[in-house]
Amino acid sequence: MPTYTAPTKDMQFVLHDVLNIAQSDIPGYDELDREFTAAVLEEAGKLSTEVLAPLNNVGDEEGCTLENDVVRTPKGFKEAYDKMREGGWMGLDADPEYGGQGMPYLLQCATGEMFVSANMAFNMYQGLTHGAYSAIHAHGSDEQKATYLPNMIDGIWSGTMNLTEPQCGTDLGLIRTKAEPQDDGSFKITGSKIWISAGEHDMSENIIHLVLAKIPGGPDGIKGISLFIVPKFMVNEDGSLGDRNAVSCGGLESKMGIHGNATCVMNYDGATGFLIGEEHKGMRAMFTMMNEARLGVGLQGYAQGAVAYENALGFAKDRLQGRDVTGTKNPEGPADPIIVHPDVRRNLMHQKSFVEGARAFTFWGASLIDAAHRKDDKDAEALISLLTPVIKGFLTDKGFETTVLAQQTLGGSGFTREWGLEQFVRDARITMIYEGTNGIQSLDLVGRKLGQNGGKTVMAFFDLVKDFIKDNADNEVLAKDFLEPLKAASKDLQAAGMYFMQNGMKNPNNALSGSYDFMHLFGHVCLGLMWARMAKAAQERLDAGDSDVEFLQAKLATGRYYMARQLPATSMHLKRIESGAEPVMDLAVGQF
Amino acid sequence: MPTYTAPTKDMQFVLHDVLNIAQSDIPGYDELDREFTAAVLEEAGKLSTEVLAPLNNVGDEEGCTLENDVVRTPKGFKEAYDKMREGGWMGLDADPEYGGQGMPYLLQCATGEMFVSANMAFNMYQGLTHGAYSAIHAHGSDEQKATYLPNMIDGIWSGTMNLTEPQCGTDLGLIRTKAEPQDDGSFKITGSKIWISAGEHDMSENIIHLVLAKIPGGPDGIKGISLFIVPKFMVNEDGSLGDRNAVSCGGLESKMGIHGNATCVMNYDGATGFLIGEEHKGMRAMFTMMNEARLGVGLQGYAQGAVAYENALGFAKDRLQGRDVTGTKNPEGPADPIIVHPDVRRNLMHQKSFVEGARAFTFWGASLIDAAHRKDDKDAEALISLLTPVIKGFLTDKGFETTVLAQQTLGGSGFTREWGLEQFVRDARITMIYEGTNGIQSLDLVGRKLGQNGGKTVMAFFDLVKDFIKDNADNEVLAKDFLEPLKAASKDLQAAGMYFMQNGMKNPNNALSGSYDFMHLFGHVCLGLMWARMAKAAQERLDAGDSDVEFLQAKLATGRYYMARQLPATSMHLKRIESGAEPVMDLAVGQF
Repeated sequence: MPTYTAPTKDMQFVLHDVLNIAQSDIPGYDELDREFTAAVLEEAGKLSTEVLAPLNNVGDEEGCTLENDVVRTPKGFKEAYDKMREGGWMGLDADPEYGGQGMPYLLQCATGEMFVSANMAFNMYQGLTHGAYSAIHAHGSDEQKATYLPNMIDGIWSGTMNLTEPQCGTDLGLIRTKAEPQDDGSFKITGSKIWISAGEHDMSENIIHLVLAKIPGGPDGIKGISLFIVPKFMVNEDGSLGDRNAVSCGGLESKMGIHGNATCVMNYDGATGFLIGEEHKGMRAMFTMMNEARLGVGLQGYAQGAVAYENALGFAKDRLQGRDVTGTKNPEGPADPIIVHPDVRRNLMHQKSFVEGARAFTFWGASLIDAAHRKDDKDAEALISLLTPVIKGFLTDKGFETTVLAQQTLGGSGFTREWGLEQFVRDARITMIYEGTNGIQSLDLVGRKLGQNGGKTVMAFFDLVKDFIKDNADNEVLAKDFLEPLKAASKDLQAAGMYFMQNGMKNPNNALSGSYDFMHLFGHVCLGLMWARMAKAAQERLDAGDSDVEFLQAKLATGRYYMARQLPATSMHLKRIESGAEPVMDLAVGQF
Repeated sequence: MPTYTAPTKDMQFVLHDVLNIAQSDIPGYDELDREFTAAVLEEAGKLSTEVLAPLNNVGDEEGCTLENDVVRTPKGFKEAYDKMREGGWMGLDADPEYGGQGMPYLLQCATGEMFVSANMAFNMYQGLTHGAYSAIHAHGSDEQKATYLPNMIDGIWSGTMNLTEPQCGTDLGLIRTKAEPQDDGSFKITGSKIWISAGEHDMSENIIHLVLAKIPGGPDGIKGISLFIVPKFMVNEDGSLGDRNAVSCGGLESKMGIHGNATCVMNYDGATGFLIGEEHKGMRAMFTMMNEARLGVGLQGYAQGAVAYENALGFAKDRLQGRDVTGTKNPEGPADPIIVHPDVRRNLMHQKSFVEGARAFTFWGASLIDAAHRKDDKDAEALISLLTPVIKGFLTDKGFETTVLAQQTLGGSGFTREWGLEQFVRDARITMIYEGTNGIQSLDLVGRKLGQNGGKTVMAFFDLVKDFIKDNADNEVLAKDFLEPLKAASKDLQAAGMYFMQNGMKNPNNALSGSYDFMHLFGHVCLGLMWARMAKAAQERLDAGDSDVEFLQAKLATGRYYMARQLPATSMHLKRIESGAEPVMDLAVGQF
């Protein structure tokens, strides 16, 4: 069975040496000194290793079961859930006015990576609650907030998001669920929703469903969608639980992975719902949460890669097969550990350089969200809005790839259930699909985000890269190994953007056919930038005589791998993009 | 549930328009005219669609069970197995002297692709028998051949290959299974083998195990390995079954995919075995079969991609979401089919251009094997020996990637078990691992095959590409869209080979760190060549006034996609290779 060791040291490096958070002027960051974050991460790591990780395989093997309207979660999940509640982890970054701990979102992400690595299916229950909390917090009335938030922050109540219906996933304009206004101001919700994660389960006392539905007579398409609170049990005025609402789980989805999470068909049969925000403005309310939710999925992607890499590395150090061609390394043993072989190394370095780069990228993204929320930084808000589809799409594609590479490190053992690597592959696979497929992320990036603020935001990103290169031009450690490749990659990205501008007007398909490659090109430039920043931070500590030489030199070497071996993908993506729409769109449908 | 439609038309195009097999001077190919191959493919397709495909999900859901030494295969497998036997499919290319049909191996591959697409786990039972048949046929004594081959060709007996032990997979020198000589010339085999596909099951009356073991006192390492026949039931002189031999299934492996195939722990407890060929020359006997076995796994890889693509395409034509940005295509419906969207197209074209290119590449490879075996063509033998690791490694990596892309086309439905795409992903995953992991394939390619015949074979391959480009330089349809990119890709491949020659002597890790990228670079050049050949064949038919314009133009368009959008990967692989060993090998083991 796989192990999990929290990457506390690496996280501390990103938080303090790279992002330098304690010196930031974002309100709340001044508390985040090295000691404080170390203590929080230590605790989260302990919980992850000791409580959550051992349940990951249990969840996969047992899955969830539906009997008489009740969904039973795997053995041990409820006890673990209660431990998470008691530790206050569910409300870590929630509003103190409603009982939250008011920590920065960044810390929520760092601890969240650990929980996800240890047990992704389990962590989704509280992840969904967090999403529903955010929507009510941002758009609910004071009364709604007072009624629902304290118990959701505590975790004694959980939450869900209900968007998809059988005939509509990506295209939410096709929603059929109806919300009929009642005399008392409430609505009767009728319809069926599918693929509702954590839609029904036995770990919380009430479930607060957020449901997209249409009020009859409203505008067609997505302009006529409203968002509703539909509690599983009605809440009495004194806060106690009342009658069961007319919502029930009609079935559980059988799926490739995340078996420990209940993926439900939810039937609303004239259930009582309460409008959140304005009528027909449901999509706006959804979009509010989207940056956080999508960043959270990007995090899931690389977090699965991280735990898979840890276990691949352990195997590669232990497993004895063949001899090092440059000279035996383990003369007493029957063979050398496979980590001596260059192709095994290549595989491990690919995993390691992605995971550490992705962690830095995500933490940076989380700090932008904090800057946007906590000091109303409009530039940070625009930038994270641009980067969100990249974080979601690129990190989940590459995160999944990383789990596959890690599985490959184990050879035949990687294919067996016993070693558990194959579960990471199956669990990671969903991250490329939900919260908007990665194809949709790429359309969001190219069709919407590139042009936002008249293109100023993407120009600001290019400037950020350019300035870093200029400011560090004299740094000998960075110049050749980091800045040159970063510059080349950034040039490819700009050329791709230019191609879209020049050819997308003539035919939008010229841009849309290249959107997926653009998302990956963008992702590589971001990770290239993060590696350049990490290399700089590591070198500064080395120059200052830091004694942790092995760790800091490993950072530099891992960064050099990324720049030399991963970043060259940018020129391939550019070539594909510049081939335009024709190769993609040439066939008539009947010719396929 | 997924559907399967045999790609008979596409196969006929490759066999007759591209490879022009009926005009070949390979003995036996003269029989293979269009009508004959059409009839055979038609029959195999019918069996695949009607009998094998419906059992694919059954096999996945039920898996195999072990009870009192008996392994039960999923419901319906035995009946399907008998149908395959009765149809004579198991001995299609087997030696007529022992009851086979004596068809070319090429035809075995074409029908095999269909069987694998329809039900990979099922087809493995006869695939393993075929491998064991080949080993006995090539290295067994006349008596052994007469005793075992007729029933194995018929399928009433099946076969297995026993290599792996818990402490040794790739490094067979570590084998511990013992073979002690007996006075009667037989051996007592003792040891435990793992991951034995089709090791025990209820579909055949006897199972002929081929087992690698060491005769005490022999040389150390792989030079001391011998190959033995160990029948499950001893065979009496009159051919009837005698006593049960001391071999039994000790357990079934729980694994990510191919659940319908029994992956067994096989225990040999002083079992009676018979030496095949010479003592200590077991590895040589294994290598004889390797080209075919590895080509067969490459075929499995793209065959899973092929059926996944078929189902992704069907979904993309049916599923209505969003509108074509260049103008509504389905005004009567609530939305357009998703195949109108450029990013869905890109995904489908990626799948289609790989699958069709891989099919042509594999069939070409099979024809080289036929040339080597049937007319003793040494050049063909050298060439297929070079290409084998590329076929195995590249086609399984890209085949798996294709199943993942196809799954992505379905969005959330792709993650559910109901739609069946996720099974193709799980089943395809093993092809990258067994029969030598793809890392091992890349080492075989760079460490052994590149230098074979003093480098003459790889030079012959380059000449083949060069000659094609030269011979068709005046062809306007080919020149810009096909020949130019092929030339550039081939240049990248030659540059990579040059890098290895110049730097591999100094430090072998400079070559070994680039071996995986080299394998992919090589694969792209091969598929580029195949697409250029297919484009030429299609254009010739169009020029001749062929009426199947839609199909032939689709070939050209799909080829243009491959050249414009897949082939640019070669420059990325070259850059990675040219970065050498340092980024890969820099870290000390303790620094990971």
